[in-house]
Amino acid sequence: MKIGIYGYGNLGRGVENAIRQNDDMELFGVFTRRAPESLKINTPDAKVLPAADAEKYKNDIDVMIICGGSATDLPEMTPALAKHFNVIDSFDTHADIPKHFKNVDSAAKESGKTAIISVGWDPGMFSLNRLYANAVLPCGKDYTFWGKGVSQGHSDAIRRIDGVLDARQYTCPVESAVESVRRGENPELTTREKHTRLCYVVAADGADLNKIEQEIKTMPKYFADYDTTVNFITQEELDRDHKGIPHGGTVIRSGVTGNGNHHVIEYKLTLDSNPEFTASVLLAYARAAYRLNKKGDCGCKTVFDIAPKELISKDYNDIISSML
Amino acid sequence: MKIGIYGYGNLGRGVENAIRQNDDMELFGVFTRRAPESLKINTPDAKVLPAADAEKYKNDIDVMIICGGSATDLPEMTPALAKHFNVIDSFDTHADIPKHFKNVDSAAKESGKTAIISVGWDPGMFSLNRLYANAVLPCGKDYTFWGKGVSQGHSDAIRRIDGVLDARQYTCPVESAVESVRRGENPELTTREKHTRLCYVVAADGADLNKIEQEIKTMPKYFADYDTTVNFITQEELDRDHKGIPHGGTVIRSGVTGNGNHHVIEYKLTLDSNPEFTASVLLAYARAAYRLNKKGDCGCKTVFDIAPKELISKDYNDIISSML
Repeated sequence: MKIGIYGYGNLGRGVENAIRQNDDMELFGVFTRRAPESLKINTPDAKVLPAADAEKYKNDIDVMIICGGSATDLPEMTPALAKHFNVIDSFDTHADIPKHFKNVDSAAKESGKTAIISVGWDPGMFSLNRLYANAVLPCGKDYTFWGKGVSQGHSDAIRRIDGVLDARQYTCPVESAVESVRRGENPELTTREKHTRLCYVVAADGADLNKIEQEIKTMPKYFADYDTTVNFITQEELDRDHKGIPHGGTVIRSGVTGNGNHHVIEYKLTLDSNPEFTASVLLAYARAAYRLNKKGDCGCKTVFDIAPKELISKDYNDIISSML
Repeated sequence: MKIGIYGYGNLGRGVENAIRQNDDMELFGVFTRRAPESLKINTPDAKVLPAADAEKYKNDIDVMIICGGSATDLPEMTPALAKHFNVIDSFDTHADIPKHFKNVDSAAKESGKTAIISVGWDPGMFSLNRLYANAVLPCGKDYTFWGKGVSQGHSDAIRRIDGVLDARQYTCPVESAVESVRRGENPELTTREKHTRLCYVVAADGADLNKIEQEIKTMPKYFADYDTTVNFITQEELDRDHKGIPHGGTVIRSGVTGNGNHHVIEYKLTLDSNPEFTASVLLAYARAAYRLNKKGDCGCKTVFDIAPKELISKDYNDIISSML
């Protein structure tokens, strides 16, 4: 299976690394909007090519992994590339998924290609667990907690404040709330009761720290609805202690059967590297897209459409013997 | 969807209860090897019928849920019933699954019916999580811990000892081992290091308690390889404190990506009632069997073959909007 990577940020580099862990896959090339000669990739035999030329390679690539952002890149890129390639994306703007699905579906059905959108861990593995848990416990309540993990969007929002040189924001689950859900207490939780926000901020010399702190804590949507802690640190400390991009979280469904017997289903991810884990999920679904397309099953799909066996390179007898 | 229940023990009663939580399903009837008039079921409009007459009702039932034991019932029942019905079973003798699969597959292919075997939580939901986790983290290590939960097989083994009137055995995970796995330490664990066995025993008046305790602790396969604790209690205490059939456990995969970034995927079930939860899983897969059969997809399947969306009664647009 020949893989193309479209976009070479953290996620694209993660995909490149993950290909090495899957011996049925190889990297054909990386497509970039930057000058190709400016890009140094880690796979000696793979090409670096201009994004604009992608279509020329449509017979060389089995699946194109689109590593763009959900805000502006993917709504354009995925339908456009689905005209020529089997594609995978990690579109994660939950509210816009139905619209994105429709656009990608018409492109892929017209070209006879297979697209799987919104792949990763949320949406992705978390979505699967929400669905399985709802299917087996029809009477119950769902909870999703995120973190402890770095939110790039919130870190960026802090960096835009006057006097801030750099920042890193962690989303943290409120452990007492998680514990209450685990005990099957089915609490009603406000935004503030579910997560806190922890910020590490590097301020410019002479900046008004109180003003920065207030500006963060009162920022609508991003921070105002949360208990937020702001720590000022040096750039050195930030680089030393907060360089990673960890994330994770927990999906819990708590429900009842029979005469009040209680059940709790919990799925938990603890990830050192958000983009590398997401990349690994993308590749498993690239395998599925390739297989589905070979069977003539084209159009747009999500993780809900994919039989688990299509994700793994081992054969069916092997997975029945070793994993069932 | 009309459901038949074949066998009316704890699991069969669980299925009957679970049908009430799924408004696209109704119970047609319960099939029993006992005298039908001796059976009191909880669904007023459903029939109680002799197991031997099942075939007569093949046009009345969309899916037959086979609630027999794995040791002797299911290897016979599932292939036999797959000649006339779409069927679901919870066959859980891991080593014999490939053989059982083959037998059920030929029966179901011949009749044009759809069978899904080894459905429940282990095998079942745990198997799914082993597969998903292996697919997304090809480099890693798997762990399954069971409990704290009642093992019927171990409880029965204690009851067979001379001087024992009743017993309840709990399988317990060794929490320090689970914690080590969660921290990503990838320990090599012996049987003894993974689980302990906790026994509550009601002894006959005047029985030699030391002898009973020694007999339990040295019993090959069941207890000899484990740290086992034996508590003697009264029948009253056993009935009061140990009447439930709780179970559960944890599937963990711990793996690496890139340059040593660590990831831990954990799936955990905490179940008040093992048979009721298993029954709920069986019904979700009954829905899938029914749909697959309508599409002409017959033969034997496992949870690995079933696209998640087939398990739930909500329509696709709804699950994309609400769960993805």
